[in-house]
Amino acid sequence: MKFKLEHQDKAARTCTIEFNRGVIKTPVFMPVGTYGSVKTMAPYELVDMGAKIILSNTYHLMIRPGEEIIEAHKGLHNFMAWDRPILTDSGGYQIWSLSKKRTITDEYVEFDSPVNGDMIRLTPEIAMRIQRTLGSDIQMVLDECTHYPASKDEALLSMKRSEQWALRSFESYQDLKQDSDSAIFGIIQGGMYGDLRLENLDYLSSINFDGLAIGGLSVGETINERMEVLELLMPAMPKSMPRYLMGLGTPLDIIRAVDVGVDMFDCVIPTRHARNGQIYTHRGVLRIKNAQYKDDLRPIDEDCNCYSCNNFSRSYIRHLFNCNEILGSRLATIHNISFYLGLMANIREAITTNSFEKFKKSFTEKYQQ
Amino acid sequence: MKFKLEHQDKAARTCTIEFNRGVIKTPVFMPVGTYGSVKTMAPYELVDMGAKIILSNTYHLMIRPGEEIIEAHKGLHNFMAWDRPILTDSGGYQIWSLSKKRTITDEYVEFDSPVNGDMIRLTPEIAMRIQRTLGSDIQMVLDECTHYPASKDEALLSMKRSEQWALRSFESYQDLKQDSDSAIFGIIQGGMYGDLRLENLDYLSSINFDGLAIGGLSVGETINERMEVLELLMPAMPKSMPRYLMGLGTPLDIIRAVDVGVDMFDCVIPTRHARNGQIYTHRGVLRIKNAQYKDDLRPIDEDCNCYSCNNFSRSYIRHLFNCNEILGSRLATIHNISFYLGLMANIREAITTNSFEKFKKSFTEKYQQ
Repeated sequence: MKFKLEHQDKAARTCTIEFNRGVIKTPVFMPVGTYGSVKTMAPYELVDMGAKIILSNTYHLMIRPGEEIIEAHKGLHNFMAWDRPILTDSGGYQIWSLSKKRTITDEYVEFDSPVNGDMIRLTPEIAMRIQRTLGSDIQMVLDECTHYPASKDEALLSMKRSEQWALRSFESYQDLKQDSDSAIFGIIQGGMYGDLRLENLDYLSSINFDGLAIGGLSVGETINERMEVLELLMPAMPKSMPRYLMGLGTPLDIIRAVDVGVDMFDCVIPTRHARNGQIYTHRGVLRIKNAQYKDDLRPIDEDCNCYSCNNFSRSYIRHLFNCNEILGSRLATIHNISFYLGLMANIREAITTNSFEKFKKSFTEKYQQ
Repeated sequence: MKFKLEHQDKAARTCTIEFNRGVIKTPVFMPVGTYGSVKTMAPYELVDMGAKIILSNTYHLMIRPGEEIIEAHKGLHNFMAWDRPILTDSGGYQIWSLSKKRTITDEYVEFDSPVNGDMIRLTPEIAMRIQRTLGSDIQMVLDECTHYPASKDEALLSMKRSEQWALRSFESYQDLKQDSDSAIFGIIQGGMYGDLRLENLDYLSSINFDGLAIGGLSVGETINERMEVLELLMPAMPKSMPRYLMGLGTPLDIIRAVDVGVDMFDCVIPTRHARNGQIYTHRGVLRIKNAQYKDDLRPIDEDCNCYSCNNFSRSYIRHLFNCNEILGSRLATIHNISFYLGLMANIREAITTNSFEKFKKSFTEKYQQ
């Protein structure tokens, strides 16, 4: 991975991240393909929309179809026919959010498979081995996602364990890397406690990571708590590597985070909400199932140039949802991903022209959450 | 509509049917887009696969979204962004197969809406008015679909009513046609009774229809009963217009019907079965959910050149079905429609080269139902 900081507009920044599989301009949004498919989308549609990198979930893929199936395909890129970069998480977050039973020690975490109830063991070493098998371009350390709310003692204990695991992940990653141009990112934890966050950042900075992620946010905290952590943390982060805020967020969340210097985002919001008929526009969320769109001949968003807006009316898309036609979910997904990717392109343009503050103000005023 | 008989190979034939919206070579298969969407597919995908005409259902569209919504879009082509020809049925078949309550008189049929239970009245005149509003290129008369099994008296009574309705449909169609290049097809009924079928054909031949359909088949009869009707009827049908066998069928059904001179087909099989994971290949149906495909790295059909077969393994598509990923239904649908359209292209090629008999034998031997 090659990283270059291109331009700064106060704290907001544009960068390029380069892999053999493609160049990524930041700030970037990564559509989520949990099971090796960005829900409802074919890979060529993502390429057409301009997606440069997607995220896939180690936790889900290790359960279904399992590591050996993807190994037989020589990696996730071949398995899902996506030849651009992929970032994989380590499975940490899902173990804490999805498993009903789990045992955690300093050595390992064991959790029950949601598919058949089998107990599955994950260690930093196993998490890195699986991500290597997946062939992901950006691999994430195994961490313990601190729950919310957590007392300071709990947050500290959890963070200390994540520190050990970060180091073990890094060492294991190095052992397996060979001549790949992949990258490994550390994940900053520490709950809502600023001093813990800074201490964790210090520790992780001592390891030779290619990028740093902020974990343990978007877990139920208020927007003020989140921004307080980010505003303290971001100025202290190294400028020379990507900064990735995991699991965020709405368009306004993303704009706020770019404003303090975040480069990378992923979130299920545009795809999941699309399938529920919640469609993102410059004027806020449009709920396409509402009766008011029954005979509305306009496209979803008159300012949008996506396939859905170029070809279909609100009335038609509402009709598809009304009849449970899969094409409805597809058209809404195409629009929402296009909207998110278009938003990121506008953000990059605004930063490049030193007008991000103006862009933020104008977007926020127009957009009714 | 312009019709031309191009070539005959015994009873099998190739023809062209020409509309302003496009030229159709027969024998042709029409994918079914019940609610104004061929399930899971976007219009451009159907174009890429080579679909020249699709079928849509008047019964469904008059209930959802309703005639006035499609009128506001200036017709079904605009509503669904499909600019090639559309054939619409009249709603007759669905009234008999889908409605729980219905009242039928010589004047009209009333049935309960499956959406809200409202009673809806249809007459030949209303059926033709709605199809005109839809702007369909091939419109079908309103008929009574004779149930199966039916006594000869029942079949006769039902057929006589359909005859009156065919004439009323035709007259109403003429009143509404204006300068459109659309066509209207009559529908031959008469149950499994050959003499009734021939009598009905005689009657319908006295009306100036652009094409004739065979209705009341694929309703539960045996393959022998069906072929007996077809073998009697087809030689008696006019050569100078298209012959459309409604609602059929499997690949072998289609080949048998082409063999006796049928030109046009529609069926939900390729799309519906795709969503259940039943995939059509030259070697028969492949049930992709079966465990045997878990680690099968081959494409669905090694002889196939569709998007799904060019890019994905059986293992990946099985994984998508296993995880309820919509892309699985899409890839299976793309393959099945491609398979059906490819089958029709091979059939046309075989007829043109006077080798249909050989093609039929070779296809049937390879294909295990």
